[in-house]
Amino acid sequence: MLGRSREQPVIIGIVGDSGAGKTTLAAGLAEVLGSDRTVNICIDDYHRYSRAERAKMGVTPHSPDANYMDILEQHVRLLRDGQPILKPVYNHNGGKLDPPEYVEPREFIILEGLLGYATQSLRDVYDVKFYLEPEEQLRHRWKFQRDTIHGGYTREQVMTSLPKLQRDSEQYVIPQRGFADMVVSFYPPPEKPEESGECLCVAHILRPTLPYLDLVPVLEVGSDNGFMLELMRDIDGRPADALHVSGTIDDGQAEAMEGFLWSLIPNAPAPGVRGRPGAFHDADDQLRYSHALALSQLVIAHYLLNAALAHHVS
Amino acid sequence: MLGRSREQPVIIGIVGDSGAGKTTLAAGLAEVLGSDRTVNICIDDYHRYSRAERAKMGVTPHSPDANYMDILEQHVRLLRDGQPILKPVYNHNGGKLDPPEYVEPREFIILEGLLGYATQSLRDVYDVKFYLEPEEQLRHRWKFQRDTIHGGYTREQVMTSLPKLQRDSEQYVIPQRGFADMVVSFYPPPEKPEESGECLCVAHILRPTLPYLDLVPVLEVGSDNGFMLELMRDIDGRPADALHVSGTIDDGQAEAMEGFLWSLIPNAPAPGVRGRPGAFHDADDQLRYSHALALSQLVIAHYLLNAALAHHVS
Repeated sequence: MLGRSREQPVIIGIVGDSGAGKTTLAAGLAEVLGSDRTVNICIDDYHRYSRAERAKMGVTPHSPDANYMDILEQHVRLLRDGQPILKPVYNHNGGKLDPPEYVEPREFIILEGLLGYATQSLRDVYDVKFYLEPEEQLRHRWKFQRDTIHGGYTREQVMTSLPKLQRDSEQYVIPQRGFADMVVSFYPPPEKPEESGECLCVAHILRPTLPYLDLVPVLEVGSDNGFMLELMRDIDGRPADALHVSGTIDDGQAEAMEGFLWSLIPNAPAPGVRGRPGAFHDADDQLRYSHALALSQLVIAHYLLNAALAHHVS
Repeated sequence: MLGRSREQPVIIGIVGDSGAGKTTLAAGLAEVLGSDRTVNICIDDYHRYSRAERAKMGVTPHSPDANYMDILEQHVRLLRDGQPILKPVYNHNGGKLDPPEYVEPREFIILEGLLGYATQSLRDVYDVKFYLEPEEQLRHRWKFQRDTIHGGYTREQVMTSLPKLQRDSEQYVIPQRGFADMVVSFYPPPEKPEESGECLCVAHILRPTLPYLDLVPVLEVGSDNGFMLELMRDIDGRPADALHVSGTIDDGQAEAMEGFLWSLIPNAPAPGVRGRPGAFHDADDQLRYSHALALSQLVIAHYLLNAALAHHVS
């Protein structure tokens, strides 16, 4: 991987509720780490039943029992050991099980999905674990948008499924927050409470399981460019640091800070051939870019490379 | 497994040309060994491309390149080590790739297909390797019957594909004969040269790689019941024994011999709850039974249990 000769891939977990932005973060990290060095695996692909089968059986896709968890564990172990896998494919558009696809390991393996930390054997395999927790109102808006545009669901179907989803979420998804090394939370800036796109702010709650990273250089450059460190109490009552990125910085501030964060990525490509983090789909399904999102993805990459280095050296 | 406490499954290979009777033998062995103790895996399931994709690309399904050989090797290793797999599925009716299916290991794993001995890593994994080689005229008749009834092909499509299949066969399939421990050959009895069903004879060519099995008891009972041992020269010029089963024995002879061969199967179920070997589909796709086929499958099971015991004890 970047600057080091090593055998095993770095394995990155992204967990969060439906519509929390997992795929967006996974894609952004691939832009920073290099898409040719990264494999993104969506845990939904390990659904055991098609949507039609689930409807007939009355089962939720969010329960571990409705997913090939043991095969997922096996596949992650195989990729970690440098072997290819034949990955199942779940087609969200229509909810069908498609033929599997051949996936070869790369330097970075990003696993994103609802149940990424559901078993001990899975939790043990990650180098770094992220949990996405946008404000609930935002998440509902994003989920609604995604399901009606890409999921093949009608507006009414999404609305009627919400109470059941909430129960699944409380039972299966939210309990995994406690296993994360970093919780990433999107929220509207105080002066724009209706914002749901490019001007969102991002908070990174740094939990004590993360290997130490000296934030002084980031804050020295970042304090003038939308970055702020806040001492807070996490929902479990324990003290934590939250690194905030403002959604309302201007282009100049963003460019200065992006350039600085790229300089912290070991062996990053030259400016002309870099990937472009910060992409998202807006309410009209148009591809847009957000400065705060790009900076968040660069900071997250910085953290995960630091953590991966610490794990693999230790 | 039968009478022994052991960890690893017995892995059985069945290779032979298209229409040679691989699926029929695999099903017959599952009847003798116990279908609840047996997993049958068809190597065609590891086809990389659908029929439509192959037509567009101009590739044959019989080349190792057109199959996930590395995934097949990986899956057999996983099953051998007691792990489940998510097996790809090739749907012969239409030639499509279907969603994969979850397969758990059992005491006996039967791998049947055109390319079962195509790689060293695969060849190393079997306890016993069989090769099916019916008389060419018989094989063509069987293949034609299968492809037009179950493969979704027309009579003309099968006819025009024959020269290409012959080249594939010579390039990919037939060279694997040399790796087999036993070659099984069906042929019409001399007095019924047109026979293609229940009265076929079976020759079992015993190659020197098989662990020693004392045939005296089988021949003592069998000499009056359609069994005969013949000293022959194999196609590679080396001396070999061929154990023949006659296709024209009567019901009484067959029952006596079947009972005796069942008695050689360790921990076989009682007569009332046994499986029924010897099933095949006739030219009208009706399920029929053949005495000689049943006896052949019982003899093959006897051999493979002897060989598996020898491998696992050594």
